[in-house]
Amino acid sequence: MPNHHSEYSQVMRVKPFDIEAKKLVSILSHTDAVELGVFPLDRVELKNLRNGKKIVTVVDVTKTMVKQDELGIFKDVKEKLGVRSGDRIEVKPAAKPDSVGFIKKKLDGETLGEQELFAIVKGIQSNELSEIETSAFVSAVYMHGYTLDETVAMTRAMASGGKKLKLSRGPVLDKHCIGGINGRTTMIVVPIIAAAGYVIPKTSSRSITSAAGTADAMEVVANVCLSLEKIKTITEKIGGVIVWGGALDLAPVDDEIIKIEHTFSMDPVGQVIASVMSKKASVGSEYIVIDLPVGPEVKIQGREIAEELAKKFIKVGDKLGMRVEAILTDGTEPCGSAFGPALEAKYVMEILEGKFFDNLAQKSCELAGALFELVGRTKKGRGFALAKEILDSGKALQKMQEIIKAQGPKCLHSNEIALSKMKKEIRSAVSGEINSINLRECINIARIAGAPADEKAGLFLHVQVEERIKKGQPLFTIFAENKRKLQLAVKYAKKSCVVETRRMVLEKFQ
Amino acid sequence: MPNHHSEYSQVMRVKPFDIEAKKLVSILSHTDAVELGVFPLDRVELKNLRNGKKIVTVVDVTKTMVKQDELGIFKDVKEKLGVRSGDRIEVKPAAKPDSVGFIKKKLDGETLGEQELFAIVKGIQSNELSEIETSAFVSAVYMHGYTLDETVAMTRAMASGGKKLKLSRGPVLDKHCIGGINGRTTMIVVPIIAAAGYVIPKTSSRSITSAAGTADAMEVVANVCLSLEKIKTITEKIGGVIVWGGALDLAPVDDEIIKIEHTFSMDPVGQVIASVMSKKASVGSEYIVIDLPVGPEVKIQGREIAEELAKKFIKVGDKLGMRVEAILTDGTEPCGSAFGPALEAKYVMEILEGKFFDNLAQKSCELAGALFELVGRTKKGRGFALAKEILDSGKALQKMQEIIKAQGPKCLHSNEIALSKMKKEIRSAVSGEINSINLRECINIARIAGAPADEKAGLFLHVQVEERIKKGQPLFTIFAENKRKLQLAVKYAKKSCVVETRRMVLEKFQ
Repeated sequence: MPNHHSEYSQVMRVKPFDIEAKKLVSILSHTDAVELGVFPLDRVELKNLRNGKKIVTVVDVTKTMVKQDELGIFKDVKEKLGVRSGDRIEVKPAAKPDSVGFIKKKLDGETLGEQELFAIVKGIQSNELSEIETSAFVSAVYMHGYTLDETVAMTRAMASGGKKLKLSRGPVLDKHCIGGINGRTTMIVVPIIAAAGYVIPKTSSRSITSAAGTADAMEVVANVCLSLEKIKTITEKIGGVIVWGGALDLAPVDDEIIKIEHTFSMDPVGQVIASVMSKKASVGSEYIVIDLPVGPEVKIQGREIAEELAKKFIKVGDKLGMRVEAILTDGTEPCGSAFGPALEAKYVMEILEGKFFDNLAQKSCELAGALFELVGRTKKGRGFALAKEILDSGKALQKMQEIIKAQGPKCLHSNEIALSKMKKEIRSAVSGEINSINLRECINIARIAGAPADEKAGLFLHVQVEERIKKGQPLFTIFAENKRKLQLAVKYAKKSCVVETRRMVLEKFQ
Repeated sequence: MPNHHSEYSQVMRVKPFDIEAKKLVSILSHTDAVELGVFPLDRVELKNLRNGKKIVTVVDVTKTMVKQDELGIFKDVKEKLGVRSGDRIEVKPAAKPDSVGFIKKKLDGETLGEQELFAIVKGIQSNELSEIETSAFVSAVYMHGYTLDETVAMTRAMASGGKKLKLSRGPVLDKHCIGGINGRTTMIVVPIIAAAGYVIPKTSSRSITSAAGTADAMEVVANVCLSLEKIKTITEKIGGVIVWGGALDLAPVDDEIIKIEHTFSMDPVGQVIASVMSKKASVGSEYIVIDLPVGPEVKIQGREIAEELAKKFIKVGDKLGMRVEAILTDGTEPCGSAFGPALEAKYVMEILEGKFFDNLAQKSCELAGALFELVGRTKKGRGFALAKEILDSGKALQKMQEIIKAQGPKCLHSNEIALSKMKKEIRSAVSGEINSINLRECINIARIAGAPADEKAGLFLHVQVEERIKKGQPLFTIFAENKRKLQLAVKYAKKSCVVETRRMVLEKFQ
């Protein structure tokens, strides 16, 4: 509804509140709101009569916080208006931003055009939209989904709002895992790819619900908080980086949207793809392998959704000029034996050092191999062998050490990585064959023990699926840096079913 | 996702912020949030270690507002925990309320049961749910709608959270208009019904987007801010009241929901019905007439939606043990000639005084007549005549004066109601027959002139549809209490097409 009062205004004195509201809000008394004809979530334009600065804010109405003729504002608005003591502010009703209307369209099940999605992303990023409005948008996307074109447009919109990495050499390769699983393939794939002469500027996240994110594990061996300029320099020089992407401002709106999705565990397919691809677009990735682990305890629990995601990733990549390969991987059991930043980092360094070759090493070479095939370095079916050759030769380890040194070294070898001395071994109460290992329970125990905040805390598995074990044999060790957390983790581990053994007792009769 | 950290906690010092947040929020530093394993919109339980008081709050994470080991809280939380200077608070992760899961169910298109809707309503009312979560719920309801059973359950849930009016005599009659039109039928229907010996405790709203709500117009002649006790006493004694329902706390959650709906002009049918019926249930109404004006400028713009609403109102009423009649009325032209609190109050008093009988009087007698038929006072088809008889006899006026005196009198006769002396007559630029009068434009002009905040401001029509007029003849008068507002309203009136005349010039050739 158009607001017909826009020529009527009131001059008010400021009552500042010394907090950050993030969103741009004006707090009006009930009386003033009626006088101006505005309601909560309507907009008013504020103009500082001393310096002429203007800003449009969302209206909040209170009966207690401000008196009549007082305008309550928070730090953010105060700064934007350059408010000094005694300033008087002209307040007048303003139209809602167009983005509110576009959100309504999406609520109504209509398809949005590129400009409309750009307007919504801009509205979220500039704090023009309230959390209530952003939540309605995320809910609408969850319920109605995105068309392919909408996904592409949203990817562009989210990338356009952030910073960009522009490398002087290429081709730029990348990988991404739709998470929920342990094991740091990135720390193996990146040095293999870089050792082969390609460019791979990998930005990673910290843990959300796992025992460690790639950024958490990498931080054990190197500094991961690098500026975009530094990332550019290192990548151009040595081919790869593994850094924390969180502070780089690559697609800032994504975080706002993810926060709301997280509340309801909403993962609308189109938004997941836009979220990943916008960050890839921001760093200029051209060849991308997407790892989609499928299993009961990871993010993607069914083949069907995995296949739908895989196909859409490829199509969206295509529209954005990126070559994408999506790989469905086995997410039913742990990938490697480590859970927690230091444990996972140490484990990965041991693989790079050639100490063993397990399912994590296997998967990493598959992913790196897929990239080699995608970029045309090898024929189809030959990528894995090349990746394994680079790993076995020690070149990947050498490249990883170069990367660590360039980022700011902490540890160059697995034996330099310290684990917590406070630990507890959990032994099997029975003999038998291991039927399954519950990934989620391993993660839960590692988290209760303090991971990822306590980097030396976590869990290490001593057994594998299908292994025959004897009663009293160690199943796993819990590491903690704090006695209380160790006790809680052990208590939890004893109650939960981490390792399931079979063929013990089929039935009992009395 | 269950939170497995619930036994781990941290003790923190309080940093209070002197504002009302309405929602129960804890502000944590980024470091502490990681340590506790919580994210924005997760929950933490706070326990004041001095007095043992506990409360569950929503998590907000900041990098600037609080330092590590500091817990930021607002007034509401401070009061609930009885925080004094130096108190230390134990903070530990808590499960999200069940209501969050129920909102997710609704987002997924599932039907909610009565207990689930009760939990959501309780979550909104107790401020347990964040605005983001409430917005997702309202959006889900908008997109998926309610089943009949859900509407009934939501009505009960919203009514149960508020106060109740329990009258010692009955039957209790009521009326409701799904708004957007001028004319105060309530101020005519209530005295007619009460004069006939029935009980009608009418709670009304103030204007939202119109020139005056019933509460605004009634306030010109009487006090409308009455306690529930006072409403009970007056209604039992004289049969009727016309009061402002906004502060009675009858179905408090409704306001929260309406705030979000208003943002996107969302009016999901089921929620509209639950909103109206919960308030009727709270005052114990048994026989209800619902007025559904249909027209291009009012809330209900199509016959189909009106019919759907009508049928659902009746069914929901049935399930709640209320007899409902829904009446589709003509909302294509103004109802009466007045726009604005004082103008509408004066106009209604003149009808009660028998000075004229226009379309507003006609509609009021139809509504009152429908109630007479519904409660069995007259046969079908005889209600209108009885209502008109009571109006014509002066008994309705007499009852209205009793009501005014009981509520706290301001004016007992139309001639005591003062209008603004500052006014401007708008005259016709042409001769012809009046084809239509734009209801929305009349309201817009009245609002720009200051209504409803300035009670003597508004617009008064001098012409009717199908009336033949001459060039220069007065079309309407704008009243204002402030020179600037009068100028703005006149300027707007001259640009807009309030009155459309026809048969003037059919075509011009050159």
